[in-house]
Amino acid sequence: MTSPGEFELIQRHVLKSLSGERDGYDRFACADAGVELGPGDDGALLVPTPGHRLVVSTDTSNVDVHFPADAPAHAIGHRALAVNLSDLAAMGATPRWFTLALTLPEADTAWVDAFAEGLHALAHRHGIALVGGDITRGPLSIAITVMGEVPIGQALMRHGGADGDHLLLTGPLGGANAGLKAWQRGERDCKTSALAAYLYPVPRTRLGERLRTCANAAIDLSDGLWADLSHLCRASGLGAELSVPDSAYAPSLASLDANERSQAFWHGGDDYELLVSVAPARLGEAHQAAAALGHELIYIGKLSAHTNAIDGGPDNPGGWRHFGETS
Amino acid sequence: MTSPGEFELIQRHVLKSLSGERDGYDRFACADAGVELGPGDDGALLVPTPGHRLVVSTDTSNVDVHFPADAPAHAIGHRALAVNLSDLAAMGATPRWFTLALTLPEADTAWVDAFAEGLHALAHRHGIALVGGDITRGPLSIAITVMGEVPIGQALMRHGGADGDHLLLTGPLGGANAGLKAWQRGERDCKTSALAAYLYPVPRTRLGERLRTCANAAIDLSDGLWADLSHLCRASGLGAELSVPDSAYAPSLASLDANERSQAFWHGGDDYELLVSVAPARLGEAHQAAAALGHELIYIGKLSAHTNAIDGGPDNPGGWRHFGETS
Repeated sequence: MTSPGEFELIQRHVLKSLSGERDGYDRFACADAGVELGPGDDGALLVPTPGHRLVVSTDTSNVDVHFPADAPAHAIGHRALAVNLSDLAAMGATPRWFTLALTLPEADTAWVDAFAEGLHALAHRHGIALVGGDITRGPLSIAITVMGEVPIGQALMRHGGADGDHLLLTGPLGGANAGLKAWQRGERDCKTSALAAYLYPVPRTRLGERLRTCANAAIDLSDGLWADLSHLCRASGLGAELSVPDSAYAPSLASLDANERSQAFWHGGDDYELLVSVAPARLGEAHQAAAALGHELIYIGKLSAHTNAIDGGPDNPGGWRHFGETS
Repeated sequence: MTSPGEFELIQRHVLKSLSGERDGYDRFACADAGVELGPGDDGALLVPTPGHRLVVSTDTSNVDVHFPADAPAHAIGHRALAVNLSDLAAMGATPRWFTLALTLPEADTAWVDAFAEGLHALAHRHGIALVGGDITRGPLSIAITVMGEVPIGQALMRHGGADGDHLLLTGPLGGANAGLKAWQRGERDCKTSALAAYLYPVPRTRLGERLRTCANAAIDLSDGLWADLSHLCRASGLGAELSVPDSAYAPSLASLDANERSQAFWHGGDDYELLVSVAPARLGEAHQAAAALGHELIYIGKLSAHTNAIDGGPDNPGGWRHFGETS
């Protein structure tokens, strides 16, 4: 073993920063979170909850593809975990554990500290524990695998939608896309609602947990409403009849022209709200569950067996087609 | 949704290739492997085995860092999963599920097909099912998270070593390093034992499962014997007294001079054999377990409370130090 090189030093720094050793708080000590053995060995030892299914999802965030190279490190850490937590939310799962594969180009300790803070602040809020990681050298890339749990039989899936189900959004859409455009125009005040919507999406995990007992199907809105609604319709074998109210559009879209506004709403993506389908008989329960968490579900239409298309979508849906034609 | 771009096409191809759709075999259909819902939704739904702990590990393989850019795609797929399976082996865990975060630079379908074949041939042999993935654009990088299971109380950990335990290797070392050097010299016949040792390491998962009931501690040899033995000693709070036989050196090292040979054996890494510590009373059981799988465990010394160093290591260990001094 030769004397530690520069990259070995940054690996140690990342581990210290991620473990909270820097600020005197051991983020890895999570006995109450079902962690029998945390990072540091060849693998972590975790305690699954009896009567539950394990829910697993993975999402990668690459520089210049999924976020701008000059985005704040704190936001990159937040966002990389948020997009994964959103997948657990869409399954109705309770977040438990995650692993981090972090590829770093250089030894920038200030960047690493801010990244770790953004990541852990979100992890702490959602009760998910970092149980393993690998820090390698290369172009900036963050691959996270999240694990959650859901009681047997309660997972929300895309294929569960039924004819007549109401289609509901957990929040207005298009704000993240407006934020991305603001960033590209040079705006840098991350406290504006538009930039925050893009850089700091809020995964709807608690809402997903509440809705798992009353919704039939769910999907998270990462690729844009048009694409993700198409996924849900295809999986459920149904079409949709939409009637989208103004309240479904993010307020930050108000200043755009009609075409940009429609584009951001239907195709912008990155909002990480949920789209859920709820049977008419369970609507009261769903709205109450949302209200208990301070949310208002937005009705945008119904699933329908009378069409195999999505009616009431954008006037000009670009490469529009019956969802059955997409693979 | 616009018409699919080139990268969307490659994503679909990767999914088809990984799912086995190309060769008419649905690799995702794994009901017998505890998969209630495979890839295609926001997350997979998995069925943990009662009475077991979940074991999780993650390892990234980056081009030009962990493997040469011109290595065969088939070997890259094999190796990326093998290094992860080796971590499960070192914990004594039975492989169950894995996720794949694959970052690809371009739309090379032949490369993707060979990669998927290498990955799945190994996955099939070890009974591990691909349950989720994310295919993104960027410099070639493969981040895999593996999940395994181990009966409660039987996991092998680095800190379990006891004074007097025999230190045993599951196979000779140095061969992978000799293979890497052969590749760098321009050798390309992957069937030679040296190149195969580097490109196609064999994770010792079945042996790890057998040894979990008779070994006290284990670690996989990814960083080299010196570094990994140091980890095990430090975790167990013990030193080691070594007496390494010639049979511990890979045959392919025979042609090297003494210095290169020592370097490859102690520091080469990438062999992915296991180092286990076994109490004298359990040696018969351990050797029988290995013999049942066609292995011979190689004795290289003992753990010792009489020293806080590793005695009997390389004559010139480079940046040698008491393991207590490394962080």
